[in-house]
Amino acid sequence: MNLSRYKPENLKRPSSGMINVHPIQRGGILTKEAKKVINEWSDGYSVCDLCFEGRVDLIKNPPIIEFKKDVAEFLNMDEVRFTAGARHAKFVILSAFHEKTIVVDSLAHYTSYMAAELNDMRVYEVPNSGYPDFRIDAESYIKTFERVKEETGKYPDIALLTHVDYRYGNVANAKEIGKVCKEYNIPLILNTAYSSGLMEIDGKKLDVDFIVGSGHKSWAATAPIGILAVNYDYTDEVLRKSKLRGEWSGRGFTKKELAFFGCSPVYGLPIITLMASFPSVVERVKKWEKEVEKARWFVREMEKIEGVQLLGERPKNHTLMQFESPAFHSIAKKHKRKGFFLYHELKKRGIFGIHPGMTKNFKINIYGLTKEELRRVVEAFKEIAENYGLEVED
Amino acid sequence: MNLSRYKPENLKRPSSGMINVHPIQRGGILTKEAKKVINEWSDGYSVCDLCFEGRVDLIKNPPIIEFKKDVAEFLNMDEVRFTAGARHAKFVILSAFHEKTIVVDSLAHYTSYMAAELNDMRVYEVPNSGYPDFRIDAESYIKTFERVKEETGKYPDIALLTHVDYRYGNVANAKEIGKVCKEYNIPLILNTAYSSGLMEIDGKKLDVDFIVGSGHKSWAATAPIGILAVNYDYTDEVLRKSKLRGEWSGRGFTKKELAFFGCSPVYGLPIITLMASFPSVVERVKKWEKEVEKARWFVREMEKIEGVQLLGERPKNHTLMQFESPAFHSIAKKHKRKGFFLYHELKKRGIFGIHPGMTKNFKINIYGLTKEELRRVVEAFKEIAENYGLEVED
Repeated sequence: MNLSRYKPENLKRPSSGMINVHPIQRGGILTKEAKKVINEWSDGYSVCDLCFEGRVDLIKNPPIIEFKKDVAEFLNMDEVRFTAGARHAKFVILSAFHEKTIVVDSLAHYTSYMAAELNDMRVYEVPNSGYPDFRIDAESYIKTFERVKEETGKYPDIALLTHVDYRYGNVANAKEIGKVCKEYNIPLILNTAYSSGLMEIDGKKLDVDFIVGSGHKSWAATAPIGILAVNYDYTDEVLRKSKLRGEWSGRGFTKKELAFFGCSPVYGLPIITLMASFPSVVERVKKWEKEVEKARWFVREMEKIEGVQLLGERPKNHTLMQFESPAFHSIAKKHKRKGFFLYHELKKRGIFGIHPGMTKNFKINIYGLTKEELRRVVEAFKEIAENYGLEVED
Repeated sequence: MNLSRYKPENLKRPSSGMINVHPIQRGGILTKEAKKVINEWSDGYSVCDLCFEGRVDLIKNPPIIEFKKDVAEFLNMDEVRFTAGARHAKFVILSAFHEKTIVVDSLAHYTSYMAAELNDMRVYEVPNSGYPDFRIDAESYIKTFERVKEETGKYPDIALLTHVDYRYGNVANAKEIGKVCKEYNIPLILNTAYSSGLMEIDGKKLDVDFIVGSGHKSWAATAPIGILAVNYDYTDEVLRKSKLRGEWSGRGFTKKELAFFGCSPVYGLPIITLMASFPSVVERVKKWEKEVEKARWFVREMEKIEGVQLLGERPKNHTLMQFESPAFHSIAKKHKRKGFFLYHELKKRGIFGIHPGMTKNFKINIYGLTKEELRRVVEAFKEIAENYGLEVED
């Protein structure tokens, strides 16, 4: 074993000191408040110093029991729990729908499929509109529900909508799809991994039964932490408690919530950073429109580069975006570093997060960048383009 | 919402500045090396800056792909993955034994039962020897295997042994029980939540098929992180990959390991602190005998107090221990703070971690305390005892 590779001086973060535009990193950057608490709470199970009920969501000091109520209020939902990521939250919900049928949008994150597969569910997909905007709409949900009915004899048992998809950063019309699901009486999971924590989400207004969120993706928390919000209609099933009894010992665990492994394993920095960042998160969601404006400005500037074009809906409604860039791809073909040239050229300019090797398409997230940083990113792309002989409009 | 309660100045750790002897906290205290890396890696998904394969265990920078091999070597097992805690690791294993029969020791942690229940398993328990030493032995495993055979017509499909139980800190004879399981051809999970990371564990010598460990309990890491080690015989089933295909999109996720939710959600501080602490952990397990000596000294000193007596095996082989203390309980009955007096008296003396309200029995973990700290703990107990009129031997 070469243990020296684990020495602190050898564990440097690749993106350190650079502007990180990696699609999954922007919303998880800790707030200054969260940074302040990490030293005190970094040990193992730190928040369990005073755990009396055997469940992290019931701890009074730090005030997690109050926090879950505040998060429920923030999302306008009835009950909230914290999980080991949004992926675990989806698993928890779907564990109450074992072997049933689910409809998911075809832009869903792979973890939505995994959660269904792990629960032996039958998965149907809602088509998207395809290139170049890849939209998901309420009409397609209706068609899919009807198709499921035709093929299986009954409507699906549950549906999932990815509020903002990880590929194009399209913002689906959750309200319309929520309304459709309500009309069909099909419970709806809204996966807000790229929306709650960044933009305002009101579960009741959107007519959703479950909200899943990601603390490390969008609520400025240390991984892993997911947010699971559920309305009263489903609390009994989803938050169901252990019924097992030890056949020799008679031991029972009647307070433990089964699908959370009894107590969700977020009992250290994940939950404490989520809490410490929460006041800022409550404020920042109100400023989402400014982020959208910046995103639209960014798209306009990027599209001044020859052969660079936004994929996904227009106008842009989110800070996560994908561009196609055939001109960069042509350069890559002739470059000695091949597709890696773009990554290296950007890195040289202090910009990190474009997938190394990608030039035909690339994804970027500009959430929370200052105008100055944003300008630096745009200038970097333009400069690289010009250096390789591409046209850049004024 | 009263957001001021989440301000950094209001999120103080209750045990801050005190000697923390809480049973679950000692082995999770970060090493100084881990403390050095937390600032750089505290944001959300930090270790995924350079993720190319879509799985955290395959990341090369930081060197997680090497790290999993080093951990496998350290435990002398074939394959290793990281999970959202030992509870998730147990769930992962048992998800490959859906609806089968498992035998667990009757001192198992509740999460072992949960993992079985969540996978609809039939659970049989290995009796322990009861008060006062509560031992689990190989003979009882044999008897339980035979009882299962009698009752169900076949031997159990899998067995679990809690190497060190959370109640008494007994160290089970894993080698003998491993041998028995091998003779019966029943795969054995060794739950080392209180042993690996503190003491040397050699999976091959112990004849176990699976090892589950806890990073936040015993490997000086930030929660949540579990270690799952598995031998080749079971990798195909336990590390099975997704087989689902999107019925409309044709999307597949063939690299994703299903029971880990595709990619285990440890992609920030949990895995990086585990790595940064690893060189120290590799060293500290060699000094386990010194910890046992300290524990035995501590027991001798504590038992000088009237009515204080160790529960569990003798001699003591671990730093986690439970005492019964009827004399403290008699004091509590008359005290205005009732059972909370002991907690408060210790806290006044800078010692934290005895369950508030407990006096009839209490648990304590002295792992890693300096001799000076240990003396302070002993003196505190003795002083409290004397102040309330109990006899304390010289």
